[in-house]
Amino acid sequence: MDTVVTDPAGWDVLNARCPTRQVLDRVSGKWTMLVVTALTADPVLRFSELRRRVDGVTQKMLTQTLRELERDGMVERTAYPTVPVTVEYKLTPLGHDLAETVHVVRQWAYANIEAIQEARARYGAAAPDRPGPPGSRLSA
Amino acid sequence: MDTVVTDPAGWDVLNARCPTRQVLDRVSGKWTMLVVTALTADPVLRFSELRRRVDGVTQKMLTQTLRELERDGMVERTAYPTVPVTVEYKLTPLGHDLAETVHVVRQWAYANIEAIQEARARYGAAAPDRPGPPGSRLSA
Repeated sequence: MDTVVTDPAGWDVLNARCPTRQVLDRVSGKWTMLVVTALTADPVLRFSELRRRVDGVTQKMLTQTLRELERDGMVERTAYPTVPVTVEYKLTPLGHDLAETVHVVRQWAYANIEAIQEARARYGAAAPDRPGPPGSRLSA
Repeated sequence: MDTVVTDPAGWDVLNARCPTRQVLDRVSGKWTMLVVTALTADPVLRFSELRRRVDGVTQKMLTQTLRELERDGMVERTAYPTVPVTVEYKLTPLGHDLAETVHVVRQWAYANIEAIQEARARYGAAAPDRPGPPGSRLSA
């Protein structure tokens, strides 16, 4: 059944050495998805604006996320020689393509939040039957 | 342009206090995506089988990921009273729904790995023009 999860070119995210694993690591990151979401709503944003839009992100994490997205060709960074320097970020065509995928994930979250909240309530209610600490009954 | 990234019910992943942020945190995790991928290829797997399929995952991380997926109603855990106990995992209907979203992300990775590798090569080649350490020129 490997054809379900690999592709005709032989890529396989389940293999830690496959380059696509790195791509999954990157694009599946929460902050990547949120930065791409912010740049979907507002096509051009400065660092300080992005930091306000992506509620909860630290300066360090936003810096790192933007650096990685720029390196991977998904975000374009433009610096203007003002004092202090003005830096703007926007999605590249590849970034817009990723944005469509992020849109699918975001819509899934919006569509299923209530089902997940119900599942959590059921899980909590059934707590006495749940397994103990990690490892105690999970191995097989 | 907020209508692009929020939804009619008012959910907003960019808001750290919105419950959908938690959902995005969860489903956007690399290990979540890889466990769901493994359970798409093979519908029923034991813990030890999952650990082999999801190359690179530690026992601790796999245990935690499965626990969270079970709590969120996406994975069903069945224990059989063998010695030692046999535990099997499979996707629930909600988990299969998530699997379709994960499929989109995985296909995006497979389709764009070469473009990303090219972008990285360009970024490396242009290194002398790149900004210094985090924070030095990124704020705006």
